Amino acid sequence: MGLSDLETPALILDRSVVARNAARMTDRFRGTGVRLRPHTKTAKSIDVTRLALAGNFGGVTVSTLREAEYFASHGITDVTYAVSIIPDKLQRIAALLARGVKVTVITDQRAVATEISRRAVDLGIVLDTLIELDSGERRSGVMADSDVLIDLGKALHALPGTRLVGVLTHAGHSYQGRSIAAIQQIAEDERRCATTAAMRLRIAGLPAPVISIGSTPTATHGLSFEGITEVRCGVYMFCDVFQSEIFSCSSADIAMSVLATVIGHRPDMNCALIDAGALALSKDRSTGAPGLPEDAGFGLVMDVTGTHRIGGVKVGHVYQEHGMLVAEGPFPFGELSVGTRVRVLPNHACMTAAMYDAYHVVNGTDDHEMLTWPRINGW
Amino acid sequence: MGLSDLETPALILDRSVVARNAARMTDRFRGTGVRLRPHTKTAKSIDVTRLALAGNFGGVTVSTLREAEYFASHGITDVTYAVSIIPDKLQRIAALLARGVKVTVITDQRAVATEISRRAVDLGIVLDTLIELDSGERRSGVMADSDVLIDLGKALHALPGTRLVGVLTHAGHSYQGRSIAAIQQIAEDERRCATTAAMRLRIAGLPAPVISIGSTPTATHGLSFEGITEVRCGVYMFCDVFQSEIFSCSSADIAMSVLATVIGHRPDMNCALIDAGALALSKDRSTGAPGLPEDAGFGLVMDVTGTHRIGGVKVGHVYQEHGMLVAEGPFPFGELSVGTRVRVLPNHACMTAAMYDAYHVVNGTDDHEMLTWPRINGW
Repeated sequence: MGLSDLETPALILDRSVVARNAARMTDRFRGTGVRLRPHTKTAKSIDVTRLALAGNFGGVTVSTLREAEYFASHGITDVTYAVSIIPDKLQRIAALLARGVKVTVITDQRAVATEISRRAVDLGIVLDTLIELDSGERRSGVMADSDVLIDLGKALHALPGTRLVGVLTHAGHSYQGRSIAAIQQIAEDERRCATTAAMRLRIAGLPAPVISIGSTPTATHGLSFEGITEVRCGVYMFCDVFQSEIFSCSSADIAMSVLATVIGHRPDMNCALIDAGALALSKDRSTGAPGLPEDAGFGLVMDVTGTHRIGGVKVGHVYQEHGMLVAEGPFPFGELSVGTRVRVLPNHACMTAAMYDAYHVVNGTDDHEMLTWPRINGW
Repeated sequence: MGLSDLETPALILDRSVVARNAARMTDRFRGTGVRLRPHTKTAKSIDVTRLALAGNFGGVTVSTLREAEYFASHGITDVTYAVSIIPDKLQRIAALLARGVKVTVITDQRAVATEISRRAVDLGIVLDTLIELDSGERRSGVMADSDVLIDLGKALHALPGTRLVGVLTHAGHSYQGRSIAAIQQIAEDERRCATTAAMRLRIAGLPAPVISIGSTPTATHGLSFEGITEVRCGVYMFCDVFQSEIFSCSSADIAMSVLATVIGHRPDMNCALIDAGALALSKDRSTGAPGLPEDAGFGLVMDVTGTHRIGGVKVGHVYQEHGMLVAEGPFPFGELSVGTRVRVLPNHACMTAAMYDAYHVVNGTDDHEMLTWPRINGW
């Protein structure tokens, strides 16, 4: 079973590249006292996560309770659920705790603290809870210098159903960084936000043993992690065109691609069509934002080995099941005859992977004895 | 089991609205001699498709072979696969034919005709084939007035593995229509393209019994279907915010929504967060294009019954698992307290539905005894 035996479109993962990306991040924090807690939201696969956990302490970050349950069923017993908790989700948390899984939740809402404590008491559990901080992303989180930080900390510490265990922030705005220096500054803001908040909690007599930060750009480029206890990042395992454009990786580090087949030529329009459209690639348009080097459209087109970009060709437009290949100069119809298989490097790995139930796993250019690694979706 | 028992995010379908939308399109073509061949690419569900097929001849259109196989397993025996065929996909077509399913394929490539015929002969099958026409979308298809139409027709008629059965076009550019008059003109272009091509084939002594057109906007607004034998459309079953903006439906006709829960408030930013982000809603940005009435962001926010829009609130931004709710004026925090459930009307039903494995089915505001209708994804 090799690439030529697969039906297209299909999701391809290069195990050797995943292993290299995983080892690079693991090595970065080895011996520093900072624990790497990989985020599984991109991969959603136990096989990939095992590569990411090699040499690390064994805890993961998840974005859905389904991920938590799936990884628990594969023996992972330390999970941080890094999306604001609400009372409705506590029954599933209680079931995880009953299975012996250590689950940490996050909140930034004073009113939620009271509600989750009440519900936790009803369920007979105590929730390890981190206060979510806003280190500049302007999505969720409280400000490190705010009164609500201390109020929320006191509440989580005092309430019977919650246990304050520290602070967490995600510098998602590092994706807006347009130079390594800018990303280094965002990383320092993220670090300072978390350590400042933890210090303020401690001065108020509150515990903050966990000081958790992370995003792939800031974990990759941060100059200091002093005072931090753990780092969470996820897309570094696979990388993608967007991450390569914001300096998180080189294009050779992109481990995931979509295998597609050329299904038609339009010489009158200097373009061709493949059988991978919006459902195979996603409609993510991460590249093409101001300040980025190349608008990759909906993905860059490589040869079937995934090693050679085909002369400036990209997916310029997507329809549900059609992708339109465009070139800057004359379209290379000869190289891309109908029936030719290509590999499309995705703009944004998290969104593209989510369209599939499994990875077909190659090792570099070796596609013999390909494995199939299942992945999960949903909530 | 009602809406309040569901984990969020979840995909909700209002059966009464689907039935009404389906009946409206069916009624439109009843007695006209034009057969409605519903496109299953949006719903990908046998339960929905049964509603669409009520009062029609029983054939469907599919966008993937998985759809063809799935619907065949549920007793549908007449399928048009409306994406350019390539030789690699013929083995699965042969398996469908062997099960007694009538499968029609399409091509616009002269070189492909030879290849699929050769492969069909090897497989012991004859492929019913439509010539795909470009009626103005500028995606795939040959021009109705081109020489290649006749060349391709002669080839498909003469080759041993193919049987020319007519022409097919899809006026996808009707989505660019910004008035009913403009869409009526596109519908007429679509009709004329197909009938002109069929006439030219017949003049050349070639058969063209099937003259197939269709898109939801043109099927809804076309003034004449003279000379047409069948119409294909799909999103009309569900509708969505974009279709309501281009006059295909009213917002009350939108049958599908995403149930989500408010997970946090940001009073300092006049916004709130829900647990439905890019993976729950998709990143489709169909609305917001020039000439459309309202940029719906990533979806419009309704109350939990799905009947009442909450004061100008929409999903302004999505992250993987977070949706940020924004309002034009002061944010209605009171109406949207943390824990409140909302229904998000999607920009583009095809993309949003694809993120889920099942529909939770309500009937208007009645959510008692909700059914779960499975749906398929993948290829």
